[in-house]
Parts: sequence; C-alpha cells; structure tokens
Amino acid sequence: MPEHATLPPLSSTPRSTLTRKKNRAAQDRAALHEVLDAALICHVGLVLNGSPVVLPTGYGRDGDTVYFHGSTGSGNLRAAAGGVDVCLTVTILDGIVYARSLNNHSMNYRSAVVHGRARLVEDSDERLHGLRVVSDHLSPGSWEHAREPNAKELASVVVLALDLAEASVKIRAGEPSEEPEDLEGNPAWAGVLPIRTVFDAPVPASYVPAETPIPDHVAHRTPA
Amino acid sequence: MPEHATLPPLSSTPRSTLTRKKNRAAQDRAALHEVLDAALICHVGLVLNGSPVVLPTGYGRDGDTVYFHGSTGSGNLRAAAGGVDVCLTVTILDGIVYARSLNNHSMNYRSAVVHGRARLVEDSDERLHGLRVVSDHLSPGSWEHAREPNAKELASVVVLALDLAEASVKIRAGEPSEEPEDLEGNPAWAGVLPIRTVFDAPVPASYVPAETPIPDHVAHRTPA
Repeated sequence: MPEHATLPPLSSTPRSTLTRKKNRAAQDRAALHEVLDAALICHVGLVLNGSPVVLPTGYGRDGDTVYFHGSTGSGNLRAAAGGVDVCLTVTILDGIVYARSLNNHSMNYRSAVVHGRARLVEDSDERLHGLRVVSDHLSPGSWEHAREPNAKELASVVVLALDLAEASVKIRAGEPSEEPEDLEGNPAWAGVLPIRTVFDAPVPASYVPAETPIPDHVAHRTPA
Repeated sequence: MPEHATLPPLSSTPRSTLTRKKNRAAQDRAALHEVLDAALICHVGLVLNGSPVVLPTGYGRDGDTVYFHGSTGSGNLRAAAGGVDVCLTVTILDGIVYARSLNNHSMNYRSAVVHGRARLVEDSDERLHGLRVVSDHLSPGSWEHAREPNAKELASVVVLALDLAEASVKIRAGEPSEEPEDLEGNPAWAGVLPIRTVFDAPVPASYVPAETPIPDHVAHRTPA
C-alpha cells in the first residue's frame, strides 16, 4: 500500500514521558485486539526451504495468545510446529480512497502483523481450548451446537499458539491526502468508497429437514 | 483451513491422457485469473533476515503477470526488488460452513497462491504500465479521471512484476462435508452462511465542492 497512517509497533518506542508511553502502549494493545477480533481469517507466512509461503487460515484470540490450526496432512503447518518462525497477518479493507492524483490513491484498512515462533500445543486440555478459541472466532455458538471432536478427529488436527509479543497495528482511515497543487487547481472528484462485509441469508444443507429452525447463532450473526 | 477441496497446482501433474491434462491446465489457468481479478488486495510474503514477513498490498493482473508496488521507503519491498523470492496470496472468503460436527466446520473460499522471484521493473514505459495495471484493479476509471503521476511521484514508487508461472488455486464451495454418523444420528442444523463484500455509498472529501457529481466509475462500481 503506497500510503498509510502508521501506528508505532507494540514493542517499546522512544517517548518523552513514561506516562505517555504507557497510555500509547495500552491504546496500541487495544487496537491490536480489536483488529484481530474483527477479521474473519488471517494469512500465515512461514519459510519452507528458504522460500516464503503464505496461506489463509482460521484463527482465534484468547488474551494475548492467537491460536490457529491445520490438518496433520499439511507439511506447511508441520514445519511451523517444529519451531519455524511465522508471521500472522490480518487485514480488514474498509474503503477505496480516491484522491485527485493517482499517486495519492490509497485504501482505508486495519491491519495487524504478528511475528513470532509458533508453539505446537501438545497438552490435551490446551489443545481442546485452542480449538474452541478458533471455533468461537470462526463460528460463535457452534461449540455448544455441533458435535464435539472425537479422539480420532482430535488426533488429526495440529493446534498452534502464537504470543502477541512482537506485533504491530496499522490503520488508515478518513479522507484522501492531497498535494497542495491538487487542492487548489485540480477539479477532480475525490472521496472514499466504503467497503463492508455482509452475511447473506443462511443456506441450510440439503440433508437438513425443512422444519429444522436456523439456530440463533447463525440466523442472527453479524460481522464484528 | 482444516478441510477444503484442492485443485492441482498449475505446474504439470500426472494425468491419464494428454488431452485431459491440457483441458485441466486451461481450466486451472482460467480459475487462477478469475480469483486474481475478483479479489481487491493480496498478501505478499517474503523472507527478511531469515524470518517471514507478510504484508497486505494492492496489485493488478495483466495476462500472466501480476504487478504490485510500494514506496521506496519500504525496506520490505526493496528487498523483494533485489531478487528475494515472494509468495503472493489472494483469498476471497465466500461463506462460513456449519457442519453437524465441529471437525467438519469449514469455510467456502477462493484462494490463489503465486510463488516466484519478483522482478524490479526499471523500464520507464513498463513502470507506468505496471502502475496503470495496479490502478485499474484497485480503482478502475481513476487513470482517466485523476492526475497522472509526475516525475517526482514516479521516482518514489517501486514497481514489481511477478510471473504466474508457479501458481495454484484452491476453491471450496457448496455444502458441508459430514461423517456418516452425523448424517444419520445428529439432528444439529448445518448449512452455509454466505459472505459478500459490498460497496456503500461514496463519501466525497470535505474539500470537494457540493455540486461536484460523483463520477460513474465510483458511483456505479460493484465488487467483481
């Protein structure tokens, strides 16, 4: 993205006073949590044989830990489980920014980038907890509604945990930036085309009896 | 994503006959183009000091070349220009898949993953062309409407090209997969909650005179 407002990384940055530093850090932390909670999927990057691989996946946040998972059949996630560093990025696109110059065209967005070493979750209680965190993020209410995983299904899933220790948030919002020459002498239209994610009416599966009501956690779900 | 339908990679795969191979390759190529054309942003992964970095960015496709760009102030993209391998991933989320078991919960999505060495575009004509391709993808119509980049602005942008040589497409669509035990003995609701991206009414910038009409390329834009 050629142009955007940048919040400082969550790791400490030079500030004039400790009080301001603390306030800003808390604000950054809250913004990070908000972005992670508002997005639906993330993109996880890792290095395989020296080359980058970026894959979309589901995830969920519990405090300052992000859980994500994959099939044991996935070589990519097995590599992460072995201790490879990952970069987990979440992006919510909020709008297309039309400026009077092409160079100042931009996007409004909220993005979180988390760096760290993904930990393979091996404790059976934490594995179940991690899966629940991911489930509650992707499909809140399903954990109470659907059949819980059995032993064979649990064995087929890799659960990974990533701490929100080294993370940053970037947010661009509001109207276009313009050069002075465009503000004065350029009559082109400028503004923002807002982008929104919506859920359409749920579509029952063909094998669900017609009289089965759509449960509230699906029927009344709205984007975060 | 724990479960999804997988199309074969675009690089050749064993097939029973040459004819089928050719047809399938053409279908894959068309699907790849469709996904790349339908998404708004991509996530680019690269390796910096041995660690993966994943960043959202704008892009555009011209034939079998993807162009993307960034500021010369971005160390990440300067690294890519120097010849670092990248992985460019595009994901469109189409729905949340609610199965009768938690393990078969999934997402409907279309995703394209492109691996390759990004080429720094240095020829001035191709630089302008690459910027136009990105602009036409992010904000079709803007190239004709807004002020073109001047020499200083052109100098501030890094333009990168990535060939669609090593690329794959994954698509999951349709209703949930279920275990036989859930089809027979589990009364839970199952189905798909469709997800869609919409554009809301354009918001003119504060400095645009009230009588300025919203141009057609913004007013009538619809998601791909």
